[in-house]
Amino acid sequence: MATAARKKADRPATDNSDSPWASPDRRASERMRKREAVIGAAARAFKERGYHNTSLDDIAALLHVTKPTIYHYVENKEQILFECFRTGLDQIRAAFGAVRRPDAPARERLELVIRRYAAAVTSEFGWCMVRAEDQDLSPAMSGQVKTLKSEIDQGIRRLLREGREDGSIRADVDPKMTAFALAGALNWIAHWYRSDATLTPDEIADRFVVLFVDGLRPR
Amino acid sequence: MATAARKKADRPATDNSDSPWASPDRRASERMRKREAVIGAAARAFKERGYHNTSLDDIAALLHVTKPTIYHYVENKEQILFECFRTGLDQIRAAFGAVRRPDAPARERLELVIRRYAAAVTSEFGWCMVRAEDQDLSPAMSGQVKTLKSEIDQGIRRLLREGREDGSIRADVDPKMTAFALAGALNWIAHWYRSDATLTPDEIADRFVVLFVDGLRPR
Repeated sequence: MATAARKKADRPATDNSDSPWASPDRRASERMRKREAVIGAAARAFKERGYHNTSLDDIAALLHVTKPTIYHYVENKEQILFECFRTGLDQIRAAFGAVRRPDAPARERLELVIRRYAAAVTSEFGWCMVRAEDQDLSPAMSGQVKTLKSEIDQGIRRLLREGREDGSIRADVDPKMTAFALAGALNWIAHWYRSDATLTPDEIADRFVVLFVDGLRPR
Repeated sequence: MATAARKKADRPATDNSDSPWASPDRRASERMRKREAVIGAAARAFKERGYHNTSLDDIAALLHVTKPTIYHYVENKEQILFECFRTGLDQIRAAFGAVRRPDAPARERLELVIRRYAAAVTSEFGWCMVRAEDQDLSPAMSGQVKTLKSEIDQGIRRLLREGREDGSIRADVDPKMTAFALAGALNWIAHWYRSDATLTPDEIADRFVVLFVDGLRPR
């Protein structure tokens, strides 16, 4: 009887409301939600205690589960760190997706990316985004981190070049050095930002945009 | 006889050229030179292998001496890290000393500080300057690091305020956020700079100054 019921639950179901087992769709979304909870709890723990000072047992304890439960969602601690890193970076990658079409001057599109970048770095994933590469990662993981970071870097350089072409950005701006300076200023937020700060992430982004766009010299 | 000679060498001497022992002045400067060699070798080793992966034995081996010799110049590895940090920061502190007198508009004085800051971060002490605080330092050491960093931060804010007053910096610049953005962009150089880079430290500083001073928007 248990076997029959399990078989039923395993079937692709559309309406399973008469079964005490959740539908496959529902189970998939539950699994996703739980996996996200693991990643989120880990991100906060890494930020507070440091990656090396946080164990899978610590993360499990935060979620009131056991370590074997954690292994149901992730392979190991390094994979969690990578997922935290990727979750933070995904917000910036989504921003690049949103500004791909040249429907506004490149400088304005870059401003949007800067704002989303600041939001990501001030999120709970900010620490992992900025500090993941400092940890002793396996060569494979380290390579993946570098690839994703390089994608962001290239995206900023591309917007800077487009801005030089459409006239919204000064012609003598060096795309590579400017991308490094922008990313550096934004990444560094993870070193000083506290969630109880006077300024909201949006207000911080405003100040940064004013500096980068208009510079220090009076116009 | 050995005792008599040692006593002679211990005396404050002006001309000691007839003694086979170095004069106290000479010995003090030799000691300083050797201590600097320890700090410099450690800075390079920390940068290449990481602080935790570098032992005092490693540093001693780099200088072809033994660990007890190293202890003659520094108390422990943490003190070496701090000295590396301070040596890097001292270059920036010296820049603030050089621009204290308001004999030029504050923005120009800030530009000089930015250039010296870039030079310090690209020096062999750059890694220690930027990454020292990430290591597991003792609370006392960590406090000293924070104090010195805060001094640099306050110095940048002061120049920004002076620039708003003397008209060389836009009136709507937020000193605190701008100081964080500038320091972040400059500190981040330690993450990407390689001594075999295409651009010299001066050229990197030029690009950064153009961005910070004139901004991205065409004038």
